[in-house]
Amino acid sequence: MLTEIGLSQVKLKDSFWNYYVKNIKEKTLPYQYKVMDNNMDISIEREREDENLPAEKSNALENFRIAAGIHEGEHYGWFFQDSDVYKWLEAVAYSLEISPDKELEELADSVIDLIGLAQEEDGYLDTYFQLKFPKLKYRELHYSHELYCAGHLIEAAIGYTKATGKQKILDITLKFVNHIEAHFGYEEGKIQGADGHQEIELALVKLYEYTGEKKYLDLANFFIDVRGKDPKFYEKQVAQNNREGLSDSHPKINETYLQANEQPVNQTTAEGHAVRMLYMATGMAKVANHTKDEDLLSACKEIWNNVTRKKMYITAGVGSTVHGEAFTGDYDLPNDTMYCETCASIALIYFAYELFKNEPKAEYVSVIERALYNGALSGAAIDGEHFFYVNPLEVYPSISKQNPGQGHVKTQRPEWLGCACCPPNFARTIGSIQRYLYTWEKEKQVVYSNLFVSSEVQIDDIKISQNTDFPKSNTVSYQLFSNDKQVTFKIRIPEWTKEPVLFIEGKKQVLKMVDGYVEVSRVWDNEVIELSFETPILAITAHPNVVADINRLAVQRGPFVYCAESHDNAEPLQTYHVDAKKISMANASFREDLLNGIIQITVEATQQKKDPSWDNTLYQFNFQGNLEEKTLTLIPYYAWGNRGEGEMVVWLYK
Amino acid sequence: MLTEIGLSQVKLKDSFWNYYVKNIKEKTLPYQYKVMDNNMDISIEREREDENLPAEKSNALENFRIAAGIHEGEHYGWFFQDSDVYKWLEAVAYSLEISPDKELEELADSVIDLIGLAQEEDGYLDTYFQLKFPKLKYRELHYSHELYCAGHLIEAAIGYTKATGKQKILDITLKFVNHIEAHFGYEEGKIQGADGHQEIELALVKLYEYTGEKKYLDLANFFIDVRGKDPKFYEKQVAQNNREGLSDSHPKINETYLQANEQPVNQTTAEGHAVRMLYMATGMAKVANHTKDEDLLSACKEIWNNVTRKKMYITAGVGSTVHGEAFTGDYDLPNDTMYCETCASIALIYFAYELFKNEPKAEYVSVIERALYNGALSGAAIDGEHFFYVNPLEVYPSISKQNPGQGHVKTQRPEWLGCACCPPNFARTIGSIQRYLYTWEKEKQVVYSNLFVSSEVQIDDIKISQNTDFPKSNTVSYQLFSNDKQVTFKIRIPEWTKEPVLFIEGKKQVLKMVDGYVEVSRVWDNEVIELSFETPILAITAHPNVVADINRLAVQRGPFVYCAESHDNAEPLQTYHVDAKKISMANASFREDLLNGIIQITVEATQQKKDPSWDNTLYQFNFQGNLEEKTLTLIPYYAWGNRGEGEMVVWLYK
Repeated sequence: MLTEIGLSQVKLKDSFWNYYVKNIKEKTLPYQYKVMDNNMDISIEREREDENLPAEKSNALENFRIAAGIHEGEHYGWFFQDSDVYKWLEAVAYSLEISPDKELEELADSVIDLIGLAQEEDGYLDTYFQLKFPKLKYRELHYSHELYCAGHLIEAAIGYTKATGKQKILDITLKFVNHIEAHFGYEEGKIQGADGHQEIELALVKLYEYTGEKKYLDLANFFIDVRGKDPKFYEKQVAQNNREGLSDSHPKINETYLQANEQPVNQTTAEGHAVRMLYMATGMAKVANHTKDEDLLSACKEIWNNVTRKKMYITAGVGSTVHGEAFTGDYDLPNDTMYCETCASIALIYFAYELFKNEPKAEYVSVIERALYNGALSGAAIDGEHFFYVNPLEVYPSISKQNPGQGHVKTQRPEWLGCACCPPNFARTIGSIQRYLYTWEKEKQVVYSNLFVSSEVQIDDIKISQNTDFPKSNTVSYQLFSNDKQVTFKIRIPEWTKEPVLFIEGKKQVLKMVDGYVEVSRVWDNEVIELSFETPILAITAHPNVVADINRLAVQRGPFVYCAESHDNAEPLQTYHVDAKKISMANASFREDLLNGIIQITVEATQQKKDPSWDNTLYQFNFQGNLEEKTLTLIPYYAWGNRGEGEMVVWLYK
Repeated sequence: MLTEIGLSQVKLKDSFWNYYVKNIKEKTLPYQYKVMDNNMDISIEREREDENLPAEKSNALENFRIAAGIHEGEHYGWFFQDSDVYKWLEAVAYSLEISPDKELEELADSVIDLIGLAQEEDGYLDTYFQLKFPKLKYRELHYSHELYCAGHLIEAAIGYTKATGKQKILDITLKFVNHIEAHFGYEEGKIQGADGHQEIELALVKLYEYTGEKKYLDLANFFIDVRGKDPKFYEKQVAQNNREGLSDSHPKINETYLQANEQPVNQTTAEGHAVRMLYMATGMAKVANHTKDEDLLSACKEIWNNVTRKKMYITAGVGSTVHGEAFTGDYDLPNDTMYCETCASIALIYFAYELFKNEPKAEYVSVIERALYNGALSGAAIDGEHFFYVNPLEVYPSISKQNPGQGHVKTQRPEWLGCACCPPNFARTIGSIQRYLYTWEKEKQVVYSNLFVSSEVQIDDIKISQNTDFPKSNTVSYQLFSNDKQVTFKIRIPEWTKEPVLFIEGKKQVLKMVDGYVEVSRVWDNEVIELSFETPILAITAHPNVVADINRLAVQRGPFVYCAESHDNAEPLQTYHVDAKKISMANASFREDLLNGIIQITVEATQQKKDPSWDNTLYQFNFQGNLEEKTLTLIPYYAWGNRGEGEMVVWLYK
């Protein structure tokens, strides 16, 4: 099994990613703290059109203060509001591991103190249930998110303890995990069910990996195994509460939405809520990587194939509908009503990485890369203080703002969201991009270089320096030192490159590609590897079953999917037409001044001429339009929506 | 002002329409009665995905029996369930006027007796409020539909009294209208508001036209004038009820949905619920036609232009979203998530007819025709016993059945719907198609022939016989007799004809077209007019602002919009490509055996060849597909969904 490289072992030197990592540390994390502290004068938007959704304030930290008895008041926000704090803390931990910062650490310590004060004597910790429904702890699992929040706490605790050496948050966490362990399991008297929102499964495996305590792996395995074993589990919990007079609710529970209609090991397609599905799949893969459960792994691969071959947008966005933030049928990929939650692309990264660790094929890293450079990175504005929940593939404000079926599609990134799962998820994931650069297999002494990102890494005795100006340049050079050991160095040659050429110490190599990686095995004594390749501008066609993309082409260069915005082009954007040949002949140029520095693409296109015959009619018989030659300017998808409201489209018309 | 011709004056001899009129009488009306009587073993479907919608049974007649004290029980169904009965009765009335039928009349008389028994002493009549909320009569107008139901009762009463000469239902109705008049108006102490769902406005004008009593016109005018005068009227009603302890509801009232955000005279675009909007616009036009209120008429025309030039599907469907069954923004015409309620196309017919009466331009009749032959006719199956609420322009069952955003789109017509507004609306409208064939202007002795439908009509002394095998043939002959009077005969030359040629007594005429009509003025003594024209197969292009129709063409021949179904073509339908030239060269042939006799079109098209390179991938770079020549078979849109589930598409891909 491959393992990740510790964040502190990787030194990022890359101009593209360093901006984001630094910006997350310097702007996003302080900003998010203030928002959670109700200390920012911002406009919080609902994530979709529903008046009942909480959006007055975050209150996430205040909920802890109230639970701790420091302040008086009522819980406000989603029942999973605690997880915002935990994900923020996890993001802080990664930032501190990458570059220590006293002030940020003190802020985090104060939050940890607060979490500790809010925790109950017996270890239970969930401000929503503590403050609002103490009698319903663990009894409304279909929606409660208690274990989901616990999962995020576990991830934060591991990260923070690793980064700072401080145990306090880990102690708090283990106390809560013990409480969970005492209440859940197949033993008589314990709850034989799992949280409606998966997350704790993958977190518990991380806890096992960190502590070496097998009981955490067992508990993770239990939560996966018990799910869907009794599809009526959640209904029975509700009925029991009603019988005991603890509640009087009659929710309609959709087991498929919760992936609880059958056991995960028997699930072969991605159904229901996209983030839940992919957190679950990540947990399944993590468990299987340790238990070597072939059935579970096989289910993971079927789910993977279903997602990536039938349900994934070109941006690595997933979730085709706002209804349940969910997957829909195969090949149903509408560009305007989709969901493509930032968290879902992030979850897809996690899932892909676990599968890659089991089976080091470039296929998995390709999806990680696609998500990192597109559907996940688009989740925040370049300023690091505005966030998308939903990442559309096309937006026509004149339509989307008046069609309630697109009510969830924002034309610009809000300052915060009532359901703020995505902003801290962005911070913790993009803020620790380092973890995806290299992966290694200690037993075989194999190092995988996954992404072209300038960096230095130390793995045991091995030192690797990667230098590149990618994506501005098409050459990457590595220098390796392995301290007299035989080490296999594998470099991923992305599917979007052309004519890759590899030199070692100036000598051209015959490329030996295995599963998308070129490999060179030797004792390394600071030899220089130079890789050069072309990054053609690619015209992408979608599977013919994708109705939404018929007669349309997307543009990709390197890992970046491109889009047209009306800031660079004359509205309406749907009147432009391109062809594959012109796309392949398009021009790419670095624009330092634009959007924090992007490679802009200009394509020779045609645009339908404005025709007065349309002034008073909606339809014409045998209309002969006139096209005029126009240049269509494209920018990387992740950078859209940073220049004020306008039209945006990824899939261009032929 | 033009006036309609009485149904009994028009004798339908047309093979196309006679089938529907006869089928409605012989099958649909008896079927609907049994359904309303809970006497059919059928599956009733919800009109959209919402578990709370009533769909167990119709109960419409039972509600009257309970209100009458004949049976015991509780009201079931929508608060406007009474209107199903009234619309059925109106459809029966038209059928009886066209061709008397003792059995059907007796059935209707029994229903009228029942309605009379249910009516309260003081004239009030609404089984929902009588049985469930007697204290809230006229007090929850934002949703109550009491006056909406009253409007349908008025229309039924006029129709039935005209058809049979029997006064009973009119007496019941006038008693109710008096009750309404006593409670609504600008006078002190009266309610100064209108029903949330417009309908009574147009009905009261019909009552004025039938009785000559101006007070009904005034009341109609009041309801239009008072609407939106105080946009908070509905909220205030609710608050008042709460204050008086009559209810404890806090509904979110959307004034735009109700077209109550401002006075109708100031409304210039079509917003909110589509049927409400168009019933209101019909009422406005009807009032204005009598009062000569230029401001009101001008508002009607602005609304008309907005609908027909920016918000109408090629099928004359309207309402682009299920959310509020409503209009959205200009040019927002998605083909898969739209609503296009059968009732909305019918309402558009009514609105168009009123504008035509004021201003006899073919533009209005073109829309009537487009709706009659397409978006309204598609509302029922050829068997007359299955009904669409929503009329999509494309359906891919593999997508629509798994995407909740298309949960309202049925792939086949249900046997009945929980909200059954459309089936009887279809019956009353299509069952009285006669009213649209001719219109006349008595003062000027001008007769308008609007549609090519074999028929005989008598208007005062004037007799017209129209003979045609249209749409099978392209010739129409008229014979006119005007009893020594000078009569101007105007024939509409539809926009979809080519090279129309007119002969009178064998002599070719120079066509004198005014506003889409050719006119001949003379004393008629059984002269024969012969009109011949071509019906080219037309490739339709949508306005370039319609994003959903970019790179797509629709096909029309005569008044029929065409569609492809997978019953005639190899799935998936989106892999077919057509071009305008091939469409113009397509073949049309009458298929007597198919779908009750249709003109089928076959177009030389191309289809993307199945390519194994797609087996395991969702996207390809620089993909070169292979097209193979294929014949694409098209059928008239109205006839789709009559052969079992499959794909259907109106807008073909270029």
